[in-house]
Amino acid sequence: MPIKNIDDAILKDISVEEGVEVEFLKRGIMHGRIILPMNVKRNRVKPIAIGEGLRTKVNVNIGTSGSVSDIDMEVEKARVAAIYGADTVMDLSTGGNIDEIRRSLIEASRPLPFGTVPVYQAWIEGVKKYGSAGIPSDWFISTVEQHLRDGVDFMTIHAGISKELAKKAIKSMRIMPIVSRGGSMIAVWMLENNEENPYLQHWDYLIELFKEYNAVISLGDALRPGTVVDAFDALQIEELVNNAKLARDAVSKGVQVMIEGPGHMTLEKIAADVKLMKSLSGRVPYYVLGPLVTDIAVGYDHIAAAIGAAVAAANGADIICYLTPSEHLSLPNVEQVKEGLIAAKIAAHAGDLIKLGERAVKRDIDMSLARARLDWNTQIALSFDREKARSIKTQFGETERSCSMCGQYCVFILLEKYLGKREGVKLDDILARVLKGVTL
Amino acid sequence: MPIKNIDDAILKDISVEEGVEVEFLKRGIMHGRIILPMNVKRNRVKPIAIGEGLRTKVNVNIGTSGSVSDIDMEVEKARVAAIYGADTVMDLSTGGNIDEIRRSLIEASRPLPFGTVPVYQAWIEGVKKYGSAGIPSDWFISTVEQHLRDGVDFMTIHAGISKELAKKAIKSMRIMPIVSRGGSMIAVWMLENNEENPYLQHWDYLIELFKEYNAVISLGDALRPGTVVDAFDALQIEELVNNAKLARDAVSKGVQVMIEGPGHMTLEKIAADVKLMKSLSGRVPYYVLGPLVTDIAVGYDHIAAAIGAAVAAANGADIICYLTPSEHLSLPNVEQVKEGLIAAKIAAHAGDLIKLGERAVKRDIDMSLARARLDWNTQIALSFDREKARSIKTQFGETERSCSMCGQYCVFILLEKYLGKREGVKLDDILARVLKGVTL
Repeated sequence: MPIKNIDDAILKDISVEEGVEVEFLKRGIMHGRIILPMNVKRNRVKPIAIGEGLRTKVNVNIGTSGSVSDIDMEVEKARVAAIYGADTVMDLSTGGNIDEIRRSLIEASRPLPFGTVPVYQAWIEGVKKYGSAGIPSDWFISTVEQHLRDGVDFMTIHAGISKELAKKAIKSMRIMPIVSRGGSMIAVWMLENNEENPYLQHWDYLIELFKEYNAVISLGDALRPGTVVDAFDALQIEELVNNAKLARDAVSKGVQVMIEGPGHMTLEKIAADVKLMKSLSGRVPYYVLGPLVTDIAVGYDHIAAAIGAAVAAANGADIICYLTPSEHLSLPNVEQVKEGLIAAKIAAHAGDLIKLGERAVKRDIDMSLARARLDWNTQIALSFDREKARSIKTQFGETERSCSMCGQYCVFILLEKYLGKREGVKLDDILARVLKGVTL
Repeated sequence: MPIKNIDDAILKDISVEEGVEVEFLKRGIMHGRIILPMNVKRNRVKPIAIGEGLRTKVNVNIGTSGSVSDIDMEVEKARVAAIYGADTVMDLSTGGNIDEIRRSLIEASRPLPFGTVPVYQAWIEGVKKYGSAGIPSDWFISTVEQHLRDGVDFMTIHAGISKELAKKAIKSMRIMPIVSRGGSMIAVWMLENNEENPYLQHWDYLIELFKEYNAVISLGDALRPGTVVDAFDALQIEELVNNAKLARDAVSKGVQVMIEGPGHMTLEKIAADVKLMKSLSGRVPYYVLGPLVTDIAVGYDHIAAAIGAAVAAANGADIICYLTPSEHLSLPNVEQVKEGLIAAKIAAHAGDLIKLGERAVKRDIDMSLARARLDWNTQIALSFDREKARSIKTQFGETERSCSMCGQYCVFILLEKYLGKREGVKLDDILARVLKGVTL
C-alpha cells in the first residue's frame, strides 16, 4: 500500500461512510485513484478519502495576507469550516509569522486534513534573505520539509510550470498570463535566474520526502486561466500534460498525488477539462478551484463557482476548493467563509447526485418526505445551516402548519383538505422505488 | 405579425440591444420562437423580447401571501427588481385585496413586463363565493379577462393538466403528487366537480382574449417535479406533451405563448428536458423555475437554482424564474429578492456565454482587463451589486493598489515588479483575438 499509517479499521470506517467496499478502496489507493491525506507526524486527523467513486469533498482556504493578519480570525474560520462540513482546510498565509500561524491553524483545524502552499513562505522569506534573484533552488525544498515536519497533510507543489512554459506565458496573448500567486513566484524566480523550476530540479527528493511523511502532492496549476477567454488554451493544457506525467511518476513510486484545476472556464468546457485530466493522468484525483463560469460575478463569486463546481463534480472532479463572496476583492471574513463553504457543499452534492446516483440521494428523499409532511423541524435539521433556515422560516413571525409563502394555500394542505389523505400509496413503496434507482 | 403594438422602431431597438438582425426577430416572432409580452392596454412598457437566439431573461416573483400581506414591501421588491436588472416581474399575490394589489404592483413594476397567475385569485375568491365544488368553469376565465383589462402582459395558464392527468397524479407513486399551487387548485376543482380543466373547456375563447390584448399565455406546469426523485417522470412529460400541443395551436392562431418548466431536477437531466420541450413545442420560449439541482439547499435555494438555471440556459432555456434564499421556508423579504435576482442573473449570463458565445462576452473581457490593470473602480462599476462589491473591497480598510487577499503579493504586482511591463502584447490584439472567437 502506498499509504503508511492506515489500517483495516480505518478503511472499514471509510467504506461504511462512503458506501463502497474495502476492496474498492484498496484498489483505488493502489492505483493512485484514491488518496488519504494523513501525514505520519499528525495525530488524530480524520481519515478523508478523496477520489474516484467517492463523495466529492470540499476544501476551505484560510490564512493571513500581507494586508490583514489576524490569527484569531483565521482560527475562527477554521472552526467554522469544521462546523459547516469542510472536508479539508488549507492555510494560504502570507502575512505575519508564517511558521507560527501554520502551527496554530493546524491545531485549530483538527481533525481535518490540513494543506499548505509552501512556495508562499519560501518566496516571501527567501526574498527577504537573498533578494528574489538570489534564492537558492533548494531553499524551496527546505520549506516543504519544514511543513512536512509540522504535520501538513497535503501541499500545492507548482512543478508543472517549466521554465519554457513560463517564458511562453509571459509572451502569450492571454489577458492574464498568470493568475496563480504561487505560480507567479516560481515563474519570476525561474525567469530571473534562468533556471529550471526548483520543484522539477529536486523532484526525486520531493518524492522521497512525501513518501516518508505519507503526505499528498497536490500539483498546482500555475497557468490556470484567470478569465473565461483565456480558458482551455495551450498554456493550460501544456501544464496539465506536465502535471499528468509527474502524477503518473508519483503513483508509480507509491506517492499520493492529485492535480489542481481551473479557474475561470465557461460551462461547456468543464466536462471536457475533467475528462482530459483524468485520461492524461491515469485518473488521479482532480482538485478544482471553482471553476468560475463567468468573470463578472464580483461579490457573488461563490455562486459563479458553485455553478462550475457542480458541473465539474458531476463529471468526475473529486475535491472542490470553495470560493467566497470576497473572491477578487478582499480576504474573506468569517461569515463569507461560511457562505462560500455552503455554496461549495451544495455544488458537491449536486454533482454527487450524478456521480454516485442513489448512493447520494438519501438526504434529498428525507428532506422531500419532511416537506410533504410539513415537518419543519426535520427540514431544518437536514439543512446545511440550521440557524439560517430557522431564522428565515420565522422572519415574518410564526405560521401555522405551512410557511408564510403560501399560508393556507399550501399545496399539501389544499390537496389533503379537498381530496383527503393520500390512499393506496405507501411512502415505503416510494422509497423502495427510488432506492432501486427507478427515476433518479 | 402576431404582435399588435410593435413597430419597426421597437424591433430596431431590440435588434441593437440583442445584437441580432431585425429580420431574425421578425422571423422568430412569426414562428412563435420569440415573444414580446406587451398588453395593448399598458403604456410605456419596456419591450423585452424572449426566445431563441436572444439573451436569457430573468423573472422576479413578488406578491402577498395569506400570511403576509404588506403592499409597501411588495412595491419595494418591484423597485429592487427593476434596479438590479430583472427583465420581467410576476405578481403571485394570494392575500389582501388582490385586485388592488395587482394594480399597485403593475404601476410599481413599470417599465417591466408584468405577469400574473390568475387561477390564484379565481380560486380564492371563487371558494369564498361558491365553495370549492361550486365554482362555475367560466369564473376562471373572467378572472383572466379582468387581468387582461388591467394590462397584465403575460399569465400562467394551467391548461396542460387534464382531468385524467390530475387523477393519475393523485394516485401516483410520486413523493409529492403536485407542488404547483395553481396546479393543485385546478386539480382539486376538476376532481371535486368531475369536470375537464376550465382552461381547456374555454381554450378557444382564451385564444381570442390573448390575441385581442396581445398578451402572452405562459402554459403552467402543474405537474412539475417537487423533488429530484420525481423528476422527468411520465406525469411531467405527459403534461409537457399537452402544453406543447396547446402552444403549437396558439402559435398557429397568432397568439404569443411560452411553456413553463421544472422545478426540481438533477443536473444531468436538464439538457434533455430543454431539448425535449423545444422539440415537442416547435421551439417556443421555455420559462424555467430553477431547476433546483438538489432538494437539500434549504436557506440557499437560490444557489441550487442558479446551478440548474445556468445549465438550462446554456442548453436553450429562454427565461429563468429566480428563486430566493427563502424558497420552501417563507415569503422573501426585500434583501432576499435582491440576492435571488443576482444569483439568477449570474446563471443567465453563464448560460449566455454558451448560447450566444462572443455576443455575450464583452462584459467578461472588460472585467478581466480591469482586473489585470488593478482598476477597482471599473471592476465595481461592472458588478451586479456595486454597493456590495465596494463594501467587501474595503471591509478590512483601504488597501494600496491590490486587494487585501494578496496585498503586496498580488500576481499582477509581482509580475510587473520583477519582469517589467508586458511587452509585445497589445490589449487590442487580445480583444481582437477574443472577438474572433478564437478561444471562447
